[in-house]
Amino acid sequence: MTEVEKLGQQAQQAALKLATISTKVKDEALQAMADALLEKKSFIIEQNNKDMKEAKKQNIGDALLDRLMLDAKRIEDISVSLREVAALKDPVGEIINGWRLPNGLIINKVRVPLGVVGMIYEARPNVTVDAAGLCLKTGNAVILRSGSVALNSCLALTDVVAEAASKAGIPDNAIQSIRTPDREAVYELMSLNKYVDVLIPRGGASLIQSVVQKASVPVIETGLGNCHVYVDKDADIDMAVNIIVNAKCQRPGVCNAAESLVVHRDIVREFLPLAVKKLTAAGVALVGDKIAREIAPEIGEAAEEDWITEYLALKLAIKTVVSLEEAITHVNKYGTKHSEAIITEDYSAAMRFTDEVDAAAVYVNASTRFTDGGQYGLGAEIGISTQKLHVRGPMGLESLTSIKYIVFGNGQIRK
Amino acid sequence: MTEVEKLGQQAQQAALKLATISTKVKDEALQAMADALLEKKSFIIEQNNKDMKEAKKQNIGDALLDRLMLDAKRIEDISVSLREVAALKDPVGEIINGWRLPNGLIINKVRVPLGVVGMIYEARPNVTVDAAGLCLKTGNAVILRSGSVALNSCLALTDVVAEAASKAGIPDNAIQSIRTPDREAVYELMSLNKYVDVLIPRGGASLIQSVVQKASVPVIETGLGNCHVYVDKDADIDMAVNIIVNAKCQRPGVCNAAESLVVHRDIVREFLPLAVKKLTAAGVALVGDKIAREIAPEIGEAAEEDWITEYLALKLAIKTVVSLEEAITHVNKYGTKHSEAIITEDYSAAMRFTDEVDAAAVYVNASTRFTDGGQYGLGAEIGISTQKLHVRGPMGLESLTSIKYIVFGNGQIRK
Repeated sequence: MTEVEKLGQQAQQAALKLATISTKVKDEALQAMADALLEKKSFIIEQNNKDMKEAKKQNIGDALLDRLMLDAKRIEDISVSLREVAALKDPVGEIINGWRLPNGLIINKVRVPLGVVGMIYEARPNVTVDAAGLCLKTGNAVILRSGSVALNSCLALTDVVAEAASKAGIPDNAIQSIRTPDREAVYELMSLNKYVDVLIPRGGASLIQSVVQKASVPVIETGLGNCHVYVDKDADIDMAVNIIVNAKCQRPGVCNAAESLVVHRDIVREFLPLAVKKLTAAGVALVGDKIAREIAPEIGEAAEEDWITEYLALKLAIKTVVSLEEAITHVNKYGTKHSEAIITEDYSAAMRFTDEVDAAAVYVNASTRFTDGGQYGLGAEIGISTQKLHVRGPMGLESLTSIKYIVFGNGQIRK
Repeated sequence: MTEVEKLGQQAQQAALKLATISTKVKDEALQAMADALLEKKSFIIEQNNKDMKEAKKQNIGDALLDRLMLDAKRIEDISVSLREVAALKDPVGEIINGWRLPNGLIINKVRVPLGVVGMIYEARPNVTVDAAGLCLKTGNAVILRSGSVALNSCLALTDVVAEAASKAGIPDNAIQSIRTPDREAVYELMSLNKYVDVLIPRGGASLIQSVVQKASVPVIETGLGNCHVYVDKDADIDMAVNIIVNAKCQRPGVCNAAESLVVHRDIVREFLPLAVKKLTAAGVALVGDKIAREIAPEIGEAAEEDWITEYLALKLAIKTVVSLEEAITHVNKYGTKHSEAIITEDYSAAMRFTDEVDAAAVYVNASTRFTDGGQYGLGAEIGISTQKLHVRGPMGLESLTSIKYIVFGNGQIRK
């Protein structure tokens, strides 16, 4: 039996027990895990230093180095996030609905854990603890696998929180990490249908696509966002400028940031110079189609590729359209079904856009940046699903659950 | 562009339009499809005859031949099932819930179609129309692919219903079949993530496993059922005999039929002779463990394989256990998480079994045969999901839907 197979078998055993553990024990375990992180801070930092040293040798770049780095402050933040998860409502056990059949059978549709969750992520040690906490809260066993650059850090964090959880009454092996840096182990996890109920990849597009392509275990696809803000002919111009600047600039590196601005030609002459001025002042590099460049000659020329690209940076592509219909067609053609916004004072245009645009979240007169579990009031967020199966949009705790039908009878047989 | 790619692109275009078609138009189209099947009966039977002739040459066996065969009566039944789907409530557009955020944003969580559904099935022509009807009702475009033995029949049915749907106002290409018998086309469909939102395989274990293993498009896994009836020490013996006979014999070839009987040793001497007598009289071949064979020496010896096998036939494996705990462990080890039953008058045993057994449906004092969309009152059934993602257990119309967040603002930007 390989390491991964063994982890899978152990996780499944743990998951069966974990499914019936009380909320109280789970919440106490989350607090104990938070305490343990603070107690073992120096051990964790020591292990993180090994990763940092090796990462510097490999020249992984400052942004990645920063994500990898753990210090006392960051460990405290991670520990606080576990306490926040402890404070959330436990979704497990909820009777979603129930009914009585004519033959007297009583059906309860009950929320239960998924079982075993596989998390595949990159060199972000904090994801280790985030995922462990969210899975524990929802009664799932988790098998974690970080990017190899972060392996020492992630194993240290896993060991610390898993030990604390066990001591607090959580079944052993509820929280495990794959210890080998061997890449084959990841592929093995992706095919471990016998033991793993779902895979959640977290990270960049290439990681997620690799998991989607290779996994036979069901996957929740997250992340990719080529989001548009469409400024309709009846937009409030000041509002439109505010919203595109916010959607592009407030945090350009995230999936719900806008990547394209689509503008109705009836308003483009009035709107675009104001928008270009503010966006340029905010440091945004602009490219646009022919009409946009006639109005704002200082912007670059957009190629077909620009309509497809998720820049994740201070860059924005500008498309002009002759109608609402053309705007909707453009958004549905190039969008990634994440978050799309219309700015308009026209009621019918707003209704048509929300009806016809196919995306997890469609906004009228608001920034795409709101697509977020915290902003929506869902509590913790595991990610943002861009697939349509199981969960779409911001994923709260419920997205880590499934259902079970419990049926009470008194001797019923099928006729 | 290949045939399958073209179908995918067309289906996606159709799906965008179909998502906003009214219930009235969809229901009228379903009625028109039902009418067309009756009108084109002789064309359909003629095409089916081609398949039947070829299938007989291939010696596919009487059971498969019977499933493949279409006559006037069967076409009428298929047409009635479309009218039944028309009479169901349309789940699309339901506002599942909604709330107002402190910043004034109003969030509506709305039920929407999945988009494009790929159905991969075997030589059962009726699945063509069933799937087309259920997908149309839920606003999904569908790409159908039957077993090659049934291809002429399925293409005839597709052409008839697709034409009727178009005439009734449904977008072209909402219902399509892959026309080439080439197996590669199926693999292509399984990897068509760009256009296909979900795959639903329907058929035997090998078809389903092949799709689960090879597809990169999200799959809803259906079907496999190694179901147990556990007779607890405090069971009502007459009820227990009735239920195991029903669960095994009422329709042995389906996934919710029982494959194993698990009996507590405190009741086995009293219960087993009665059960064996009735089961044997019903033509069931029995195998059991050592204790079971001491009590009923006429039964065969069970091997490890018997605990795993989904017989789908009049055969049953009998396991004896010393405790409720051992029964639960056995069920969780060998079950396929489909349907499991306990027969007991002991309240705590019933509660513990329903809590600890991991399955889509867990029964107290009722037959496993009830796991069915029709029996549960869900209306039509697309299949029974044995995975935990998206939908578990009987799949009604809602399982063919996803959600969309529609967010109404008045200029909100993220701080």
